[in-house]
Amino acid sequence: MNRLVSADQAGGANMIMQAALAAFVKHGFHGTSIREIASHAKVSVALIYYHFTSKDDILRSIMLRVHGDVIEELREVRDACDRDVRTELSGLIRAHVMCHCERQAESFIGNSELRSLSEPALQEVIAQRDAVAGFFKDVVARGIADGTFRTTQQPDDVVRAIMVLAMGVSMWFRQDGPQTTDDVVQTHITFAMRLLDAAPEG
Amino acid sequence: MNRLVSADQAGGANMIMQAALAAFVKHGFHGTSIREIASHAKVSVALIYYHFTSKDDILRSIMLRVHGDVIEELREVRDACDRDVRTELSGLIRAHVMCHCERQAESFIGNSELRSLSEPALQEVIAQRDAVAGFFKDVVARGIADGTFRTTQQPDDVVRAIMVLAMGVSMWFRQDGPQTTDDVVQTHITFAMRLLDAAPEG
Repeated sequence: MNRLVSADQAGGANMIMQAALAAFVKHGFHGTSIREIASHAKVSVALIYYHFTSKDDILRSIMLRVHGDVIEELREVRDACDRDVRTELSGLIRAHVMCHCERQAESFIGNSELRSLSEPALQEVIAQRDAVAGFFKDVVARGIADGTFRTTQQPDDVVRAIMVLAMGVSMWFRQDGPQTTDDVVQTHITFAMRLLDAAPEG
Repeated sequence: MNRLVSADQAGGANMIMQAALAAFVKHGFHGTSIREIASHAKVSVALIYYHFTSKDDILRSIMLRVHGDVIEELREVRDACDRDVRTELSGLIRAHVMCHCERQAESFIGNSELRSLSEPALQEVIAQRDAVAGFFKDVVARGIADGTFRTTQQPDDVVRAIMVLAMGVSMWFRQDGPQTTDDVVQTHITFAMRLLDAAPEG
């Protein structure tokens, strides 16, 4: 569900974003032309310019959508939690890692083509990434304060490690591989608890 | 020092690889033409074709060189160690993370443009990556066998986490940032020891 355009336009814009995403994964942002996106989406170049101002705008929309969805999911997890920090951190990792498993192409492009965003889109996406990290920073800080978590490193370094490990999933995970998404989630929860010197949840 | 061509050719080939690397970081592999590489390197297109068979061959050479150098360094670390697994793992992490700090562009391209390699170059580079991981798998297996390391996850998952965390360094580390390469190395050694439930070295 595209949240950036009104419902009656969502189908067309979404189809274009999907085609662009596939092309970006294959040839990179700079290696893909608007004409190729139109050809893959089986739409006219004119229709692309009806929905988007430029190729940059398509990349921006792809990134804002996936980050926006992640932020919404993380917020739901946080709001549903009873403030037990291990439960909350586990829930946040589950939502975050699941996204990297299920929306692998968007996650990969979100990292590898961040360099291709121009301003002010870059700052918009960086603000969203900071918001994602913010959920983790917040729960880690509370866990350190109440003694559940312990780290000899800077808490921000641990949060970055949790982010990087999830990002890695978008690079190595294979839907048809030996591990289920649930296996991957459990591994990442275990790793985070170890990095924070906390007992496994439960 | 370019190890793929004879010494008298190394200067030219190296200059071309450096120019190509900068262009790939900026515009991606598919977004960069041989002509642009020639222009950045201030050489003729003909000279590029004297040193390399194609743009693919330049990417292949960049990747083989950096992986080859890492493998050589990891081998030196391993051979210098007295088989204490914590010392060996720390040394391997130091060499691996240092490379991601100091050869950031090559490390970033090594990950983001792996998809752009065609066969058989892709298999060559994957074999090198497996060799890099092999050093870590070997020491982790010995550490688990002798009781120094403990993990509830698959040892290969822990090794992959160590690889992914190093890869992340090539994306976020800034030479002019608040952390020195030594800080980053120490953090990654600490993280690995925590993932393996081992006491800090020393």
